[in-house]
Amino acid sequence: MNQFEQEALAYHAAAPAGKVALQITKDVNTAADLALAYSPGVAVPCLAIRDNPEAALKYTAKGNLVAVITNGTAVLGLGDIGALAAKPVMEGKAVLFKKFANIDAVDLEIDERDPDKLVEIIAALHPSFGGINLEDIKAPECFEIERRLNERLPIPVFHDDQHGTAIVVGAGLLNALALTGRQASDIRVVCSGAGAAAMACLEMLVQLGVRREQIYVCDSKGLLTTRRSLSAEKEVWAQDTELHTLAQAIVGADVFLGLSGPGVLTQTDVMQMADEPIIFTLANPEPELRPELVREVAPRAIIATGRSDYPNQINNALCFPYLFRAALDCGARTINQAMKLACVRAIAELARNSPEFGPGAIVPELLDPRLLATVCPAVVAAARASGVAHR
Amino acid sequence: MNQFEQEALAYHAAAPAGKVALQITKDVNTAADLALAYSPGVAVPCLAIRDNPEAALKYTAKGNLVAVITNGTAVLGLGDIGALAAKPVMEGKAVLFKKFANIDAVDLEIDERDPDKLVEIIAALHPSFGGINLEDIKAPECFEIERRLNERLPIPVFHDDQHGTAIVVGAGLLNALALTGRQASDIRVVCSGAGAAAMACLEMLVQLGVRREQIYVCDSKGLLTTRRSLSAEKEVWAQDTELHTLAQAIVGADVFLGLSGPGVLTQTDVMQMADEPIIFTLANPEPELRPELVREVAPRAIIATGRSDYPNQINNALCFPYLFRAALDCGARTINQAMKLACVRAIAELARNSPEFGPGAIVPELLDPRLLATVCPAVVAAARASGVAHR
Repeated sequence: MNQFEQEALAYHAAAPAGKVALQITKDVNTAADLALAYSPGVAVPCLAIRDNPEAALKYTAKGNLVAVITNGTAVLGLGDIGALAAKPVMEGKAVLFKKFANIDAVDLEIDERDPDKLVEIIAALHPSFGGINLEDIKAPECFEIERRLNERLPIPVFHDDQHGTAIVVGAGLLNALALTGRQASDIRVVCSGAGAAAMACLEMLVQLGVRREQIYVCDSKGLLTTRRSLSAEKEVWAQDTELHTLAQAIVGADVFLGLSGPGVLTQTDVMQMADEPIIFTLANPEPELRPELVREVAPRAIIATGRSDYPNQINNALCFPYLFRAALDCGARTINQAMKLACVRAIAELARNSPEFGPGAIVPELLDPRLLATVCPAVVAAARASGVAHR
Repeated sequence: MNQFEQEALAYHAAAPAGKVALQITKDVNTAADLALAYSPGVAVPCLAIRDNPEAALKYTAKGNLVAVITNGTAVLGLGDIGALAAKPVMEGKAVLFKKFANIDAVDLEIDERDPDKLVEIIAALHPSFGGINLEDIKAPECFEIERRLNERLPIPVFHDDQHGTAIVVGAGLLNALALTGRQASDIRVVCSGAGAAAMACLEMLVQLGVRREQIYVCDSKGLLTTRRSLSAEKEVWAQDTELHTLAQAIVGADVFLGLSGPGVLTQTDVMQMADEPIIFTLANPEPELRPELVREVAPRAIIATGRSDYPNQINNALCFPYLFRAALDCGARTINQAMKLACVRAIAELARNSPEFGPGAIVPELLDPRLLATVCPAVVAAARASGVAHR
């Protein structure tokens, strides 16, 4: 075990174990306090909520509370490690919610792999929360699970692996296009990876103006084409082409989007791309091709990764805390496309308005304190304009 | 609305709404901190837990985390007000866990009335937690739900409305017997109420030495007798007798245990009881008969209620925080009868060792700081001796 790994274990093991605890927000020092907080006083808000469910936002923590829910089937790049082993990630996510947007989050690791049952469980839990962040649930089940919960529940349900990634990729791409003088409608994109995050990113690119026929997608078996037998999700991206491989598709491409694994992109591939290529190698922790190797063959490339030790980190935490903050604040019953697009544009604009804006700063820093004040109002405005906000 | 009710609402509504929030327990101030708390560092404890599930106690908050779970079907004395309206009570319970035993609790209000489905949901949630406190689930479903979860899960599942009440009633009764020079095996008990709490209290009395044939139980239709058609739970307490009513059964009784509602016990009933009667009128907020009215006809009665404004408050919070603290500390896979009895005896002994011990102080005060240090070690010892402790 290397030093960083030892530090990570020590960090988690330092007392109290883990990263989260309960905080009491009201005085409970005297018998009189306890009579208000619990029996008999607590009956008064209970009855108020029974008579008017909206009162739960006034008298309980629900309105600021998000559940971070997983079943542990696709955790980070570790795969299907199970519900329990996912707990450090979910606690970490709760920490990010609190740290960046003062949202109280509860991590729930649910030991259930059947999508129908998982939907029933999460639906039954929803009264407790103001929003639900789905996390690290494997594709293709995650699509159906999120869709059905969103249709059924009166609170936002958001699968961050899909949409959080898509939003930050979208913001980074908008700025990379601006810096290289490209229009979204003119570019050709090659994507490596066809999982949940990739699918959401590709839909986002289309929303931002990229033409579907200019998007080539590879999974582990090669290019998605109409000659192959594909799942419904993948079929959407199949091209009618004689090409078979990433290496063939990438010739002349403007953008490489990697959501797959290390070694998928080669220096030869990069050399075949258009001038000033835009290369997002987001496999984590090891990118599809290391930035320094990209740079060797394409000095003017704009490069983003998922890592904090390179410039342009595509990190969902640039988005999900603020998106939920906005949704909770305006009582949005869902997080719709308009809100996601507003989030993309606000993040992109924040980076453009920074003095350091350039090829090495196409997205804001994770700890940029302006994110809350910039992104939230933009998302709230979009929620209101699109009619999903309750206030 | 009276002044107290207004205060209760204002207490809950003061910002931040509700009574609980998330607390981050580790530093997350720098990019380096975030790299440990979340990706990439978080992968290290995930893998450690995947390889050894026990490591979850070392690297996450699970070992100090209890879920407070209801479906809102029997909330306080308010009845079936639904999951959402139960949230203030469940948050209050979480507050008590934290305040009295530094246990982090998460309140979950589950919109599911079907016992089979509720069992499935709670079972699926269990990896997240070190223990489960069931709360305010109506009888008779609560019996089956608790039993099945306890059989199935490797962590303690405890229905506080049943056993918490039974433990504190048991402790108070032991001291009342000592003060009046009675033996448990000699006394006759009349119980008004046949719900979840009553059933658990009666089983506790038997554990403490009261003879089953000396226990008479009334529900809303009168005495439980072998002449009546009764549910399985109630049938256990049916007596083969010609008597029909509480007023008939109470003649000469040593103990009245009220877990029903106001007006059930009369001064005439009290006058029919043995000398120095022991009278627990636990209906809340309004007792079966007010203590001052009992006192008028039985000046030497030992009286307990559920209220904080009379002496001898029978409050579950004297027990559940410490019982769970002990169970978590020793890794008990369940909270068994030996642990409950140890808890009864420790609470009773603590009251006996107080300078104010007497007919007006048969149980400790709610805020007695000695509870943690007295009750927990006794329960841990019982868990270890009975073989349910992992450490």
